[in-house]
Amino acid sequence: MTLEAIRYRSGSLQILNQLLLPHETVYEEIRSVQDGYDAIKSMKVRGAPALAIVGCLSLAVELRAGAGGDDLVCFIRDSLCHLTSARPTAVNMGRAARELMEFTENESMEKNTEQLRDSVIGWIEEMLERDVNDNKKIGNYGAQHILSGVPRDSVTILTHCNTGSLATAGYGTALGVVRSLHTLGRLKRLYCTETRPYNQGARLTAYEAVAEGFPATLITDSMAALAMREKGITAVVVGADRVVANGDTANKVGTYQLAIAAKHHGVPFYVAAPSTSCDLSLESGRDIVIEERPPEELTSINGVPVAAPGIDVWNPAFDVTPHQLITGGIITELGVFLPSELQAALTGRLTAL
Amino acid sequence: MTLEAIRYRSGSLQILNQLLLPHETVYEEIRSVQDGYDAIKSMKVRGAPALAIVGCLSLAVELRAGAGGDDLVCFIRDSLCHLTSARPTAVNMGRAARELMEFTENESMEKNTEQLRDSVIGWIEEMLERDVNDNKKIGNYGAQHILSGVPRDSVTILTHCNTGSLATAGYGTALGVVRSLHTLGRLKRLYCTETRPYNQGARLTAYEAVAEGFPATLITDSMAALAMREKGITAVVVGADRVVANGDTANKVGTYQLAIAAKHHGVPFYVAAPSTSCDLSLESGRDIVIEERPPEELTSINGVPVAAPGIDVWNPAFDVTPHQLITGGIITELGVFLPSELQAALTGRLTAL
Repeated sequence: MTLEAIRYRSGSLQILNQLLLPHETVYEEIRSVQDGYDAIKSMKVRGAPALAIVGCLSLAVELRAGAGGDDLVCFIRDSLCHLTSARPTAVNMGRAARELMEFTENESMEKNTEQLRDSVIGWIEEMLERDVNDNKKIGNYGAQHILSGVPRDSVTILTHCNTGSLATAGYGTALGVVRSLHTLGRLKRLYCTETRPYNQGARLTAYEAVAEGFPATLITDSMAALAMREKGITAVVVGADRVVANGDTANKVGTYQLAIAAKHHGVPFYVAAPSTSCDLSLESGRDIVIEERPPEELTSINGVPVAAPGIDVWNPAFDVTPHQLITGGIITELGVFLPSELQAALTGRLTAL
Repeated sequence: MTLEAIRYRSGSLQILNQLLLPHETVYEEIRSVQDGYDAIKSMKVRGAPALAIVGCLSLAVELRAGAGGDDLVCFIRDSLCHLTSARPTAVNMGRAARELMEFTENESMEKNTEQLRDSVIGWIEEMLERDVNDNKKIGNYGAQHILSGVPRDSVTILTHCNTGSLATAGYGTALGVVRSLHTLGRLKRLYCTETRPYNQGARLTAYEAVAEGFPATLITDSMAALAMREKGITAVVVGADRVVANGDTANKVGTYQLAIAAKHHGVPFYVAAPSTSCDLSLESGRDIVIEERPPEELTSINGVPVAAPGIDVWNPAFDVTPHQLITGGIITELGVFLPSELQAALTGRLTAL
């Protein structure tokens, strides 16, 4: 079974409160756009794809309950505007809001209020389904690509941060690849880094691994190179916050160091990301601005100080892995591409549509 | 001024209680061998050189107060045996005990009880002085070697774990090199990794840096490669638990990964260690057994759980950096040597003595 971070049945939405993980597993009912906004704002839900989906589903729930009355277009516009403002730096909610608003306006020209209500709900439900399906494709393409190098053996994967059910609509990107390998009976072991300073690996990936029954081992970020030398890592698979035109990839800090260690050991390094995370408007990773976060993320844990008072801190949230180090490939829902092939592959698809 | 972790004046010994760092700075009086044993056992003092020195100094204090009566040789033997048993895996205390016992037995053949008492106390006080002097030589040799590559500029150093006043008799090994650079006015900035899972960097190196006024910045272990790319790191300098004949070096886990990242960026990688940490009886790092420590070091911090319950953990305490990655050299009190020169340099010295 797959861990459900988002439970949606027509008209009803529950989310797993990630603030309480890994110590408590509590689902909370989302009954309205305001509930959705609060869940996003307070980080009960996190992960760029998951934010957009929970936001839109909270709208679907309220629409199903009859909200909006006669001026449905206006209600939808206000709701999307409110949801987008909850975490303005997360691009996925903004992108979903623009697409849904365009769809709503077009539909409103031909349909009456109740027909419009149904088609907007349908669009949102399709979005949920599409995200899960895209992730399943990523999982399958990635698993097949990794297994093509080791015809009969089971494989050992190292991953970083959390890219699983807790960050997406349900299956995961890099962790989706691990899930596919496990389903095929070919996952020998998953190594997950704790992912300092915010510990997404220790808290969330480890939680998913235990919940799903993956054979999995937690290590510190500093043990990854040693694991590659001592534990027979078949491949490193990570997610992406953004992949740009030449294949350079921004992802959780530490990814760059893992890619260097993988190269040193001849271990293939993969990035797993839906095509919606690819940004062809930027030519190279040099154009990506890296967010720096507060020092307290390093100097305390759960409010308890863990570092010497007065020390200066550098806390970049992400780093950029140059495409030359992505030796395995970039795994998308369209297939696995070398960084040099990515732009053509995605542009070809965009032209075809 | 140098942070004093061990305060010794003839007949009086105080140690900085490292269990309370970095939040409280408390010195505790050591009045007897039993006090010394308790401080070592409870880890109020840590770092292999520091353990041996505190142990022997606790004996000197008790001897100065007149302990041992007429059967001084027997009292010294029992005391050293007791002190060695406090942390039996730390080799330095055992080595110091053997050397001091041999000295005591030789002296006892020629001297009366009070003369013997004075010469044993003298031997121990010399040991303290020798450790500090050796560290100062390491600091100076290392600083000169690093500066020889950058004639006029100040330098930025990255280090790992804690190798300073808190781990030695007073000056430090790798952090002694940093101290020398700072004294020369040539230290632009020190980057120290937090050093998961036991956080010696965040707790102790950061504490020393603040206390000494080094310009210093704390980063997670996963940010080291990014710091090399973005922050102009001049050299990486780390300590050693053991350097073997071919130059392979066992040190705190994470060192190997730093060495790979340094190689990738063309940053010189140095190991700073007194010749007493060099073990020519082992040919290569393959012969070093790596200690694995309890999972709780990763899964909780100060008793607070930080990882998902039920996750499997791998927690090697050390790793071995192959000599090929030690591109800067091995800094000893005799000079800076390439790994390939180490054995000849140390053997030549041993023959000469």
